[in-house]
Amino acid sequence: MRVLSGTQPSGELHIGNYFGALRQYLALQEDHECLYFIADYHSMTSVRDGKERVKLTRDVALDYLGCGLDPQRSILYRQSDVPEVCELSWILSTITPMGLLERCHAYKDKLAQGASPDHGLFAYPVLMAADILLFHSDKVPVGQDQKQHLEVTRDLAQRFNHAYGEEVFVLPEPYILEHLAVVPGTDGRKMSKSYGNTISMFGAPKKIKKAIMGVTTDSAGMEDPKEWNQTVFQLWSLFADKAEQEEMKQRAATESMGYGHVKQEIHERLVNYFAPMRERREAWESRPDDLEDILADGAKRARALAAPVLSAARNATGLGALR
Amino acid sequence: MRVLSGTQPSGELHIGNYFGALRQYLALQEDHECLYFIADYHSMTSVRDGKERVKLTRDVALDYLGCGLDPQRSILYRQSDVPEVCELSWILSTITPMGLLERCHAYKDKLAQGASPDHGLFAYPVLMAADILLFHSDKVPVGQDQKQHLEVTRDLAQRFNHAYGEEVFVLPEPYILEHLAVVPGTDGRKMSKSYGNTISMFGAPKKIKKAIMGVTTDSAGMEDPKEWNQTVFQLWSLFADKAEQEEMKQRAATESMGYGHVKQEIHERLVNYFAPMRERREAWESRPDDLEDILADGAKRARALAAPVLSAARNATGLGALR
Repeated sequence: MRVLSGTQPSGELHIGNYFGALRQYLALQEDHECLYFIADYHSMTSVRDGKERVKLTRDVALDYLGCGLDPQRSILYRQSDVPEVCELSWILSTITPMGLLERCHAYKDKLAQGASPDHGLFAYPVLMAADILLFHSDKVPVGQDQKQHLEVTRDLAQRFNHAYGEEVFVLPEPYILEHLAVVPGTDGRKMSKSYGNTISMFGAPKKIKKAIMGVTTDSAGMEDPKEWNQTVFQLWSLFADKAEQEEMKQRAATESMGYGHVKQEIHERLVNYFAPMRERREAWESRPDDLEDILADGAKRARALAAPVLSAARNATGLGALR
Repeated sequence: MRVLSGTQPSGELHIGNYFGALRQYLALQEDHECLYFIADYHSMTSVRDGKERVKLTRDVALDYLGCGLDPQRSILYRQSDVPEVCELSWILSTITPMGLLERCHAYKDKLAQGASPDHGLFAYPVLMAADILLFHSDKVPVGQDQKQHLEVTRDLAQRFNHAYGEEVFVLPEPYILEHLAVVPGTDGRKMSKSYGNTISMFGAPKKIKKAIMGVTTDSAGMEDPKEWNQTVFQLWSLFADKAEQEEMKQRAATESMGYGHVKQEIHERLVNYFAPMRERREAWESRPDDLEDILADGAKRARALAAPVLSAARNATGLGALR
């Protein structure tokens, strides 16, 4: 079974990304043929600086490898190294009803958040469909906010197959991930770059510490019993097993305990937890040519998978050589 | 100076296409570096049958070669043999305001004519801009109905250059063609496939004759003086020089003359006029492998011209390899 997932290069990885998705995505490589791609074409809808995109793209590659992506086992590629996806995107565009795109929430949401209404943003679901269909992906891990895009992808695959009378595309299924942690940000809302409440994963140690020490708490004093549903305890629990969590819950309700102390512990545990990943990431960072080789190899393998699918689409539609 | 023009494969060539555009396009190859392409990607917005597209695409290649395109001098290529255009189209999409596309008349006109509102039709001007910008085209011959698309192309080139701070794209100029004949159809309206009033150029001889004999006329009798602005005389004049036209005008006003006779003359002259082209076209038709070689060679030359432009666009936007 082939699983595909993409990440838009849009800035520093935070622990919400990790516990909320990336960890689960990477776990899939144990049992599946996985393609992970860095969606740099997609990032053009928001990032308009070439140098910035190069940096952000490299960061995603380093993040994935640091977090344990095994480039022997899985395929890691940069989207723009497989430009075939743009051709398929055009092919799909010609069987995409405007109404289908007009109904996509993500576009409307982006506009509501102040994004300028550009065609790339509007056409985004078609490129995403091409990303998926180009590889006969069977499963695509999706969060709640991307369910609709996968529906669009299935719809376009069916429309194409029907319009040209051939089963060129495989209909992908959503991969519903279990055990997805909802990670609160430093202010208690969902951790999200757009809220500015993130705790970086591989960022500067000082910055990480500062973010943790700034986690909001209630006004309970040292001696007061503490509410277990507070952000500090939720964050602490990310780095503790069930037994530890039970013990801490007890202590919080009964023992004298300062929030500062809990935050110190979050910090220590977080640093230890991510230390091997940070080390691995730094090792890759110090070998930029090897990193590029990994991406080149990934692109080569991805293109080999894409070739027969694109070829089938071209044949069905009568594109290309006449003989 | 580099001139680019494209033709959508959409059916049999008629004499309105020839005198109204194609003849002038081909004349450009005498003095300019010309690229002629068969817009098969574009045709996907209307033709949903692969076999039909293969046939229509071959017909355009044969039409061009029959009408005198010199494949040594000029570049003739099939759009889908240069898939780079799709990548550039995505790149341009991300700097294309929706409003710009929403204001395009052609899309609205197509919908008014009953086309289904598909995304490919809506995004058409972006792909057209990519067609043009991919080759640093200096001039693009445009009819009245495509002026707006060239304006869009210039706008996108400027937006891109501005957004990424580099002069990656050349701003194309419209090539205003002189001596464009407005060819009336058999019913007197402009000759157009959508009116069903065409006279085929390379079609079956019987069909051509039938179309000519069916040209509408007024009810003047043999002996009556004839109005010179009638369709029959306009069609006749396409195949006559100035002196002959003057003479015929005289005769029409003064001599006994039946419309049937004029139509016979149109037919004779038309057959003679197009005979060498028809012969050349048939010669190419009988050598499908040579035809395909011409297209392969054209694609190779086109891709060589496109490569540095696309590469500059990728570098400016930070796509591709990191090293």
